[in-house]
Amino acid sequence: MTRRVLHEGKVGTFALVDAELPGGTRVKLEILEHPGAAAVVPFLTDDRILLLRQYRYAAGGTIWEIPAGKLDPGEDPETCALRELEEETGYRAGRIVRTGEILTTPGFTNERIYLYAAYDLVPGRLQHGRGEVIEIHEVPLEEALAMVESGEIVDAKSIVALHHVTRATPGAR
Amino acid sequence: MTRRVLHEGKVGTFALVDAELPGGTRVKLEILEHPGAAAVVPFLTDDRILLLRQYRYAAGGTIWEIPAGKLDPGEDPETCALRELEEETGYRAGRIVRTGEILTTPGFTNERIYLYAAYDLVPGRLQHGRGEVIEIHEVPLEEALAMVESGEIVDAKSIVALHHVTRATPGAR
Repeated sequence: MTRRVLHEGKVGTFALVDAELPGGTRVKLEILEHPGAAAVVPFLTDDRILLLRQYRYAAGGTIWEIPAGKLDPGEDPETCALRELEEETGYRAGRIVRTGEILTTPGFTNERIYLYAAYDLVPGRLQHGRGEVIEIHEVPLEEALAMVESGEIVDAKSIVALHHVTRATPGAR
Repeated sequence: MTRRVLHEGKVGTFALVDAELPGGTRVKLEILEHPGAAAVVPFLTDDRILLLRQYRYAAGGTIWEIPAGKLDPGEDPETCALRELEEETGYRAGRIVRTGEILTTPGFTNERIYLYAAYDLVPGRLQHGRGEVIEIHEVPLEEALAMVESGEIVDAKSIVALHHVTRATPGAR
């Protein structure tokens, strides 16, 4: 395996890899090496959550998402989820539950997003980064699920995380 | 807006964009410009589907996925879904239904995957590309859904597409 760095970026490292596949075929693959991320469904009450309206240049406009962000170097995914929740919504969570994880698009990146649900929210410190254009909305969980079904929510991590919380044990809410 | 190409690749174009956000802030963003893709849940019967075990270098091994692939230039997503289904599983579909779409990871790519369910399968021509290491498995739909709940399936497009087919109208199955 040889690996040539094409670009060291803020998102991760974009590399051209000469890889040997099972069976021995050698292929050149472009890979975005990503540190991983965490995303969280914040519960205000048993049946109300927070959703973000976030501007995404790559999406060509503003989309619905749950709070999320990249892991800092060496950061635990749960710590990242709690940090991003507070930075993006201004709420700290008294309790957080891991609900699942996804590979976002394994054909070209190792990005893995760890999914959480957060409860017992108390006011903390809102801290939007430069370049983050975010509105915070309180939404009934049922309405958020309807927005998945209608196609209004298209962000993959948000859809999967919302799906996972609907099967969370009642005791976890 | 200025845009500098960092790498023209097989996956897409990796570019550094100097973008103006709503509100006027200027930021430099790394964007993987992707042509889009299609993915499909193939139904062998009302309650049995096909899943792939596919080697993904970026995932560090073999993962469960549904058939999927990138749009060829100018290709309609439905045509792409039918083509990838036949190439990857050896089945042609008599009927295909659009079930939804996702943005895989809108922080750094515009990749949009159009999701389908395919029915009335008949034998066609299997054609795995160089670099594709794929095993085809017949799986009860209920088992596939259990593999989502257990975390055995982590590929985002596959999870969302399987979620969407569970709410498809009975007439569509």
